[in-house]
Amino acid sequence: MADRPRIGVVGATGAVGRVALELLRERGYDDVRAYSSSRSAGSALDGGVVVEAATPETLGAGDVDVFLFSVGTDASLELVPHAVESGALCVDKSSAFRLTDGVPLVVPEVNGERAREHEGIVANPNCCSIPLSLVLASLRDAAGLRRVRVATYQSASGAGSEAMERLRGEPSDAHDLGMDWAFDGTEFDEETKIREETRKILELPELPISATCVRVPVLVGHAEALWVETEEPLAPEAAERILGGASGIRHEPFPTPLAAAGLDEVLVGRIRRDPADASGLALFLACDNLRKGAALNAIQIVEHLLGDRAAA
Amino acid sequence: MADRPRIGVVGATGAVGRVALELLRERGYDDVRAYSSSRSAGSALDGGVVVEAATPETLGAGDVDVFLFSVGTDASLELVPHAVESGALCVDKSSAFRLTDGVPLVVPEVNGERAREHEGIVANPNCCSIPLSLVLASLRDAAGLRRVRVATYQSASGAGSEAMERLRGEPSDAHDLGMDWAFDGTEFDEETKIREETRKILELPELPISATCVRVPVLVGHAEALWVETEEPLAPEAAERILGGASGIRHEPFPTPLAAAGLDEVLVGRIRRDPADASGLALFLACDNLRKGAALNAIQIVEHLLGDRAAA
Repeated sequence: MADRPRIGVVGATGAVGRVALELLRERGYDDVRAYSSSRSAGSALDGGVVVEAATPETLGAGDVDVFLFSVGTDASLELVPHAVESGALCVDKSSAFRLTDGVPLVVPEVNGERAREHEGIVANPNCCSIPLSLVLASLRDAAGLRRVRVATYQSASGAGSEAMERLRGEPSDAHDLGMDWAFDGTEFDEETKIREETRKILELPELPISATCVRVPVLVGHAEALWVETEEPLAPEAAERILGGASGIRHEPFPTPLAAAGLDEVLVGRIRRDPADASGLALFLACDNLRKGAALNAIQIVEHLLGDRAAA
Repeated sequence: MADRPRIGVVGATGAVGRVALELLRERGYDDVRAYSSSRSAGSALDGGVVVEAATPETLGAGDVDVFLFSVGTDASLELVPHAVESGALCVDKSSAFRLTDGVPLVVPEVNGERAREHEGIVANPNCCSIPLSLVLASLRDAAGLRRVRVATYQSASGAGSEAMERLRGEPSDAHDLGMDWAFDGTEFDEETKIREETRKILELPELPISATCVRVPVLVGHAEALWVETEEPLAPEAAERILGGASGIRHEPFPTPLAAAGLDEVLVGRIRRDPADASGLALFLACDNLRKGAALNAIQIVEHLLGDRAAA
């Protein structure tokens, strides 16, 4: 992979794809191509990039070094293998490969070294799993993790551009909380993903994690209320110091989605002793779900691998 | 107290007061008076009631049997004693008297009999404490309670009419999660209230309860994500059966504020084994915070006492 790789953004007209293009431009990548469904092919995006159709042929042509995929699971399952076959690295945001053995699932600050083990695909975790794993990794390193409970406050942008447009067009009297994920009879697939992905990223395959996921009428920015039981006692003041000094995290007394939107860091605050459990902590986090929760994490995975190369 | 008491609604122009007047009309109370700050005195409300000024003199005149107070804590502290002095029963929605020894804090389905012990004041609990206590009481009776954690999703109407108007006038791009309560350095007073009030209502003064309170951009209807550890094992199916049969509760697979708005019942659903704890349950509830969370509960307290009288 070249130091300034040729990058293709697949799903470029979606909520995450647009942010990926914006971030790549900000970071000085100048050889960037955009791919989308044939419906959008030919249109020009902000920044002048013309959208190409994402097909097995275009993605398998061998003229791109790194693909950032932000499309649905079915589209990833169909298209990613062609891109891998062409020799490109694929960082995939769908859930198609996240739990597949041999596919690294990476939050660079937590397990960036795992990305090196890729065989063409690195999976980008769920938008809630990324900030959660980032916060939990520091607590794991400091005191061990015994049990985690999380209630989410997830914005409309996590459901895509159409959900954002629906919210924008809706009178506030109609605003509701939603649970718009597939339900397996017990929990939402989103809740299962948070548990399984966080276990994989933290390399704690048995960690007890319970999630309740809720969609809130906010446009951008996910928040999470956490209860964390640690193996060793950890004072809230120590947790605050550890988290405040961790890469990718910023301590903020009262994190909110609006404050997190547009930032690269995960905001963490309200760190206190769990009043219901002397061995537990309560915390609150907020994160831009389109940036660190999606596009930024994907780009950081690429940069982590480029950095490894430069350092080699 | 007469079987059809003369009722005064204090704070009649506020979000809760308006709903109280509406509910009283629906339920056939025809001797209802409305009181508010002198600013609103003289104006006519929907239904034709003319607002009177709430002063020590008007509330202490002795011509009302029951006052429903929905004003701020300072106003309750000033005015309630005058109404009590006049011989009226005061059902007070503020937090002024909720934790005062000798003042019953009542959710009629849970501890209605405590209302009989009043000495002029019955306190109406916080809008989150009411549905929480209602759900927890059934679980307490079935299996005992060991520990409770709750993350709230509280609507703008819980912060009053002005907060509702602000939300209505706000573009969705500006929507955020808020934490608009007094902070004591560790937690919000709202979180302390939920713990202390729920302990008092359930008569479990040591029950470990941990709350994280969040304001969401929804107009009406509060929701709560719960994790409940019981003393004895309780299967989710049994919990669902018990809650579905409990007075004031309706089982609903996916409760939301919009579905709960306008209903008298608390909606409870998503009842499942806590995946992080074999002795725990996870649940989700939604409740109309202006009705059962406030005005309806107050009226039910009055009707509970009237029923006692009628049965006596």
